[in-house]
Amino acid sequence: MMNTQVLLKRRPQGAPVAEDFEAVDNAMPQINEGQALIKNQYISMDAGFRNWMDEGAGDDVLPAMALGKPVMGLTVGEVQESRHPTLKAGDLVMGRLAWERYSIASDDFLVVLETHEQNVPTHYHLGILGDTGMSAYFGLTDIGQPAANETVLISAAGGAVGYVAGQIAKIMGAARVVGLTSSDVKGERLKAELGYDDFINYRQPNLEAAFQSACPEGIDVYFDNVGGPILETVLNHINVAARIPFCGAVADYSNPRPVGPPNLFQIVTNSVRLQGFMTHLQVSRYPEARAQLMTWLNQGQLSSVTQEYAGVSQCGTAFADLFAGKNFGKTIVAVDH
Amino acid sequence: MMNTQVLLKRRPQGAPVAEDFEAVDNAMPQINEGQALIKNQYISMDAGFRNWMDEGAGDDVLPAMALGKPVMGLTVGEVQESRHPTLKAGDLVMGRLAWERYSIASDDFLVVLETHEQNVPTHYHLGILGDTGMSAYFGLTDIGQPAANETVLISAAGGAVGYVAGQIAKIMGAARVVGLTSSDVKGERLKAELGYDDFINYRQPNLEAAFQSACPEGIDVYFDNVGGPILETVLNHINVAARIPFCGAVADYSNPRPVGPPNLFQIVTNSVRLQGFMTHLQVSRYPEARAQLMTWLNQGQLSSVTQEYAGVSQCGTAFADLFAGKNFGKTIVAVDH
Repeated sequence: MMNTQVLLKRRPQGAPVAEDFEAVDNAMPQINEGQALIKNQYISMDAGFRNWMDEGAGDDVLPAMALGKPVMGLTVGEVQESRHPTLKAGDLVMGRLAWERYSIASDDFLVVLETHEQNVPTHYHLGILGDTGMSAYFGLTDIGQPAANETVLISAAGGAVGYVAGQIAKIMGAARVVGLTSSDVKGERLKAELGYDDFINYRQPNLEAAFQSACPEGIDVYFDNVGGPILETVLNHINVAARIPFCGAVADYSNPRPVGPPNLFQIVTNSVRLQGFMTHLQVSRYPEARAQLMTWLNQGQLSSVTQEYAGVSQCGTAFADLFAGKNFGKTIVAVDH
Repeated sequence: MMNTQVLLKRRPQGAPVAEDFEAVDNAMPQINEGQALIKNQYISMDAGFRNWMDEGAGDDVLPAMALGKPVMGLTVGEVQESRHPTLKAGDLVMGRLAWERYSIASDDFLVVLETHEQNVPTHYHLGILGDTGMSAYFGLTDIGQPAANETVLISAAGGAVGYVAGQIAKIMGAARVVGLTSSDVKGERLKAELGYDDFINYRQPNLEAAFQSACPEGIDVYFDNVGGPILETVLNHINVAARIPFCGAVADYSNPRPVGPPNLFQIVTNSVRLQGFMTHLQVSRYPEARAQLMTWLNQGQLSSVTQEYAGVSQCGTAFADLFAGKNFGKTIVAVDH
């Protein structure tokens, strides 16, 4: 039996492409004392991991990914064999492992899913109940806090965080939820499947007019998943006392020379709160977030949408598609197909 | 008797210069029913008013200043004569009037100082107890909230807001308060007169090294009064969960093509809160702010520092000096000298 792994073949220049990665079959890993063998079921595709693909990126705790090694990523899988003190065969686990069928685990970046967390499809723990769903939850409940008469704009609205954020904004009672997206097709899906009131295709020539039409009362909450130049246009339409949960800057991750918005002083003149946040700083509140999201799912107020790629060898393509705007919902790779 | 007025002679290009303004002697104004005649005592110099000097600036409520008319500004003065329903001769008032010895007042942008507010020099109400002192207070107590082990960096540290903010940060117990300023002379004054622990002269060639030396533990609170390119350097030294009270963007007011920081994604990766605020949105809390500032003044924990220009005709020079970095403390013009 072989272990299919997807390696970082070369460091991406700008937006990653499928050719930056290479699927290979290697020998099965052997576990030592203190380790467990995990059979991965699903691999999560997260644009943020682009950050660790550049030479010299990361820090001492989590350095840059190595060339020729399996790409780091979040997975869910099952413990097959264990010489680890607490993990046992049959445990369902989620953690920061790699793009591969089998992983060796020994460290702490691994969470055992409890029984009550197993009543949903396993991959929910990479998406709507995982980091991306919780990012949407924390960004809106802690920072965005939309009021009943307010307009919420969400960038990368069809992405893994955005598609959940739009639904939560509606649940919280926002008057108007508008999605920024890269195509009319995705925009129509936002309206038809996810309850968005309107969308803005940011690739159109007359962005100012599109903003005026989609957000006629201005913007009270801008849930920003992308960073980059669109913030300038948003700030021209921002309302007094607006909140900007700043969740990701995918537009900047692969841009060697990003440019900040020249009209940042609008943040002063409109008393805007622009707040970055990282889900991992909120670990103590994961149970609260998961319980609320699960309740909404069970009540049918919230839907999980995934774009699933078949086979671990598809990881490179799936990851590149994130940056090419080909994704809708949470992108996952089913290891076996 | 004539009324000396300082007119907007031409619209400033970039940073205002003294020649953009012109002092003239005009006939004394006459009050009509519903109006009061104010003899201005002090005129406040506020960089933010630069915003209303450009053609087409402002909005319907407060449009751009008119060429050939007295420049709009905050003043304190005494009611000389009144046909106004509530103002009476002898009242001390503060309001948005103009750069002139005598003003006609009829509207609402006027506050009568109560008796207990008259136990301090009148001009305190334009500075340490006025908008600039309260900006420092709200920015630090609402947003900055420095903890005992934290480093606070303040831009335009010798300016009207900054010199108060540094003192309040120390009162609140911050471990280290560092001022960004435009000269070593001003930096030394910050340390000697205002309790700053260190300063950074932002005009020096090796800014990175200066930041490392002055803020060896990184920056937890950045009280930003200037906007502009320095934010990029600050974001390279920002700590996780830092707060940035964003109070003013004087660097951008007179820059026709400001540039935003290219590393804005540091706000995401460090979970930073960047929050703009305008004192006038906090009107209901003015009494609280004034009472606290007054207490600190009386206890000797807080000092008022002013740079006073003699004579209303000096307004243009005083205002230009703000943008040339020649100010220290609160800049005021004493109308009579």
